[in-house]
Amino acid sequence: MQRKCLDGSSCPVARSLDSIGDWWTLLIVRDAMLGRRRFSEFQRSLGLAKNVLSARLKKLVADGVMTMGPAADGTSYQEYVLTEKGEALLPVLVAMRQWGEQYLFQPGEPRQELVNRRSGKKLERMRVRDEDGRESGVVDLGLVTAA
Amino acid sequence: MQRKCLDGSSCPVARSLDSIGDWWTLLIVRDAMLGRRRFSEFQRSLGLAKNVLSARLKKLVADGVMTMGPAADGTSYQEYVLTEKGEALLPVLVAMRQWGEQYLFQPGEPRQELVNRRSGKKLERMRVRDEDGRESGVVDLGLVTAA
Repeated sequence: MQRKCLDGSSCPVARSLDSIGDWWTLLIVRDAMLGRRRFSEFQRSLGLAKNVLSARLKKLVADGVMTMGPAADGTSYQEYVLTEKGEALLPVLVAMRQWGEQYLFQPGEPRQELVNRRSGKKLERMRVRDEDGRESGVVDLGLVTAA
Repeated sequence: MQRKCLDGSSCPVARSLDSIGDWWTLLIVRDAMLGRRRFSEFQRSLGLAKNVLSARLKKLVADGVMTMGPAADGTSYQEYVLTEKGEALLPVLVAMRQWGEQYLFQPGEPRQELVNRRSGKKLERMRVRDEDGRESGVVDLGLVTAA
């Protein structure tokens, strides 16, 4: 697939996609958020070719989204863990998840649901709000040059 | 690039990526949110090959994210407009934009900012909250089988 490098774009959406816009990349981040840490765990979960997984993990480490280090249990395995920058992708993944739940599932189709483990409560729908807390739709938004 | 079809996956993130995970696809949706409607406008903005743009727009219409119809001004142009399902991607794009702003720009680097046009106010940072309004981080979340 043809790719133009957009990391010099002045649009933050384009730069984000340049870093994490690859399909597998976001699924690896999702898996890491669910507690997966080892190459074999990602491979089993995603079922993708080892060379592809290896390249994606390498890019995630190079981009500072994940770090690689020795396994916490003292074995010789390597573990991949999200950095603060990686964990900060949570709102992106939750927004994507909620969109999928709303538009890409039939009623009654089996799926899992994300909850707060402590409270057992479901998540609130992600909303775009301005600084005064007013919900904003597409029609309300505009771009201005940042001060 | 190797692609596995994930539209039968039970994970809403995977299904969403199957529909809108392509890099260009999300940039087309971004452009449509900024008011672009015509093939030539998308082409000029994104600078991508006509055949690639054409294929992406076709998929967006087939997936119900955009509709295609005659131009509002009565000319013979075709216009591509976001459906409700397409506009519902706003939280995904805003979350991605905010992540890019925070982690992929140097201080002082020129960029544009998204504001509420009516109030002139900036947007609040997108947060993941449970139904009680409690902010939830990665460590707080878990998957349960949906009832």
